Amino acid sequence: MDNIKSYVGQHKDRFINELIELLKIPSVSADSAYSQDVVNTAEAVKESLEKAGCDKVELCETPGYPIVYGEKIIDPNLPTVLVYGHYDVQPPDPVDLWTSPPFEPVVKTTELHPEGAIFARGACDDKGQMYMHVKALEYMTQNNNLPCNVKFMIEGEEEVGSPSLSWFVERNQEKLKNDVILISDTGMISNTQPSITTGLRGLSYVEVEVTGPNRDLHSGLYGGAVANPINILAKMIAQLHDENNHITIPGFYDKVEELSREERDEMAKAPFSLEAYKRALDIDDVYGEATYTTNERNSIRPTLDVNGIWGGYTGEGAKTVIASKAYAKISMRLVPDQDWKEITELFTKHFESLAPKGVKVKVTPHHGGQAYVTPIDSIGYQAAAAAYEESFNVKPIPVRSGGSIPIVALFEKELKSKTIMMGFGLDSDAIHSPNEHFGIFNYLKGIETIPLFYKHFTEMSK
Amino acid sequence: MDNIKSYVGQHKDRFINELIELLKIPSVSADSAYSQDVVNTAEAVKESLEKAGCDKVELCETPGYPIVYGEKIIDPNLPTVLVYGHYDVQPPDPVDLWTSPPFEPVVKTTELHPEGAIFARGACDDKGQMYMHVKALEYMTQNNNLPCNVKFMIEGEEEVGSPSLSWFVERNQEKLKNDVILISDTGMISNTQPSITTGLRGLSYVEVEVTGPNRDLHSGLYGGAVANPINILAKMIAQLHDENNHITIPGFYDKVEELSREERDEMAKAPFSLEAYKRALDIDDVYGEATYTTNERNSIRPTLDVNGIWGGYTGEGAKTVIASKAYAKISMRLVPDQDWKEITELFTKHFESLAPKGVKVKVTPHHGGQAYVTPIDSIGYQAAAAAYEESFNVKPIPVRSGGSIPIVALFEKELKSKTIMMGFGLDSDAIHSPNEHFGIFNYLKGIETIPLFYKHFTEMSK
Repeated sequence: MDNIKSYVGQHKDRFINELIELLKIPSVSADSAYSQDVVNTAEAVKESLEKAGCDKVELCETPGYPIVYGEKIIDPNLPTVLVYGHYDVQPPDPVDLWTSPPFEPVVKTTELHPEGAIFARGACDDKGQMYMHVKALEYMTQNNNLPCNVKFMIEGEEEVGSPSLSWFVERNQEKLKNDVILISDTGMISNTQPSITTGLRGLSYVEVEVTGPNRDLHSGLYGGAVANPINILAKMIAQLHDENNHITIPGFYDKVEELSREERDEMAKAPFSLEAYKRALDIDDVYGEATYTTNERNSIRPTLDVNGIWGGYTGEGAKTVIASKAYAKISMRLVPDQDWKEITELFTKHFESLAPKGVKVKVTPHHGGQAYVTPIDSIGYQAAAAAYEESFNVKPIPVRSGGSIPIVALFEKELKSKTIMMGFGLDSDAIHSPNEHFGIFNYLKGIETIPLFYKHFTEMSK
Repeated sequence: MDNIKSYVGQHKDRFINELIELLKIPSVSADSAYSQDVVNTAEAVKESLEKAGCDKVELCETPGYPIVYGEKIIDPNLPTVLVYGHYDVQPPDPVDLWTSPPFEPVVKTTELHPEGAIFARGACDDKGQMYMHVKALEYMTQNNNLPCNVKFMIEGEEEVGSPSLSWFVERNQEKLKNDVILISDTGMISNTQPSITTGLRGLSYVEVEVTGPNRDLHSGLYGGAVANPINILAKMIAQLHDENNHITIPGFYDKVEELSREERDEMAKAPFSLEAYKRALDIDDVYGEATYTTNERNSIRPTLDVNGIWGGYTGEGAKTVIASKAYAKISMRLVPDQDWKEITELFTKHFESLAPKGVKVKVTPHHGGQAYVTPIDSIGYQAAAAAYEESFNVKPIPVRSGGSIPIVALFEKELKSKTIMMGFGLDSDAIHSPNEHFGIFNYLKGIETIPLFYKHFTEMSK
């Protein structure tokens, strides 16, 4: 694989242009207005796998969007790598904060990406990172140096909680049989310090609705005399944290894994500048659970955030109204040993108990997933570490991410194999935000590093 | 004026149709998309006053929407009644809760309006009630029994806080000179028990904006580590009331007029069924300031309500985002002796003080007005009471309303005359709500009663 750098160098313009074409399709899975675009993206991914050298590629029907499956089996006696990724993207809202349209990709330089970055929804999460694997396969098939078998499973519902994936995995255990699962849907510390994500948080996502009077009321005639659903919702949300920013749901922390002082000290060694963090976000201080550091708060501790809130008059000008209903979308990030279904139930019970007389409360669970921790002494982790070291000339650091890929825990349960998370994005790439981007350096470096993982994994598996 | 009932009976279909035409124009002053419609409504009101017999009618330019002025001066030595009303309407949102389109008026019967009611935005507030005065004038000019002088001042910005009206009144004191101001923009207890509004609450309306990080963030990567503007806004709103639902703004109650036990006992005599109130709103309990009754809470006590809230992802499905900004529209209803400008300042100072480090807060005052109480021993009140008694065969009850007509205090200050509020709507007419309506009985009864006010006021003024 000595020629990987020269192959990437020779084809990089085409690699970038192919990704740009994929990013032009607005595959927003959360919004049914885009359903045809989501399906079109699946077709485009299928074609790209065929061109990259897969022997068998198919669009697998599910109760939701299709899953793209592809494989190249060179020898049943060799190990098999299963690549997972997703071709759907987050909604682009708020669109007016994008400096260029979310589905018209452009390359611009940034402070952290002096070689340029592709700006588009899905550039990093996850079209760009998924497509690195397609191009890595192309390199290995074109150069006849694919050292093992490979399977691809690329889904279109990750951003809405992968509702069809468990259905598919449960029904296709033989087809999906593998020795390691490889995912690029996380980040790394910096372009000079790679890292491997060894932990993911779980997730419970709910929507709440508070109903007061049966119709919107004039706030002069009824104000102060009936429960105002917006005021009540605000009060209920406020009660979900105490003065130390602990979550107040009874039982919420019962199963939370408490890390030892030693483990926390080890974590604290990862390079991190609080001043740079605050400056990048333009905030005068961080905010979170007492007695934990910023990096602990967003990785080893569970959290609760309101992701959206709405009710009453939100248009131009003024309307003196008491709304009949107020709504919020609330998500909790969970840590190992917290069960997302149990937490969803605890939340529901607690939230309902906070409602005063005069309002009705409805909690609708949306989706969720378990947290995951991968061991660093596995062959998969060791192979990934060797690949990064060979590619970057520096040893990667194992880190716990605050994000969630709920299906990782499912894979371990159903497919009995470990997942290795080789992410090449940066936290500053604005995934889920306006102006999402993915560094050209990162994209090409990913394509270079992935074949090295195949090589080391195959050798270490002997 | 013995023929008033027969005149109304003879012309009622035309009266209803003329009002329906006026209601078809969507004069939403809060939304600039309707600005041409607002101006068209002013033109239509001008024409209607000309046809009703005014000698001089003009559209008076202001910094905002025009004010329609009309007059009929029969003898400078006779008293002058100044009629105030407004031709603009509240936004119709949420439009999907209307059972018929808000600007396609239809007549339907209801439990409280067995003779039918006109359903349309503005039917009661205030096009319908304002137009009663136009038709009352028509009756008096057609029958040559107008007993005094009359002036009309109909504005188009009441629903956005009348920003141009004070400008106009200050510049036209001579033109607007009068002996009493007459307004129909309030309600009455029921169709068998008329009432006269003797008090209005003041208003302070503000918009607040809470900014956290400088862009929307992924809630997995940043959740729990930075202040979430929606959670913070909820917490700040929750802190605006204490456990007894008193407002916590320091100094807020300092100037609040405390009514004596006797006055409160007198108020409690007005017919009111708490059970019927709860049933009509489909709530299992009322909610408000401790130690006050429902009718006290919505009339003699100041209140604070959130009228709208928004932030983060509010579309279909789920988005795991921490919003950069969250917003709310908040209004306070004020009682006599609370100064709205002072209260707006107290609110701003207090709200800013509630913000933790990690967020920035901006409070934008929207508009406001002073509370007002009218004495019941004035000639104006006595004339109104006599008119209602003659028309309904039952003595009207003086009541304090929870609503606000901020310009009433301004009139007293600038024009030195008392305002009499002869309202003919019902609280259940859903003003500011979907399915606003105005009873045909109430509309016609208003047209019958108003000329009797002119008669009694002129006689009592001799």
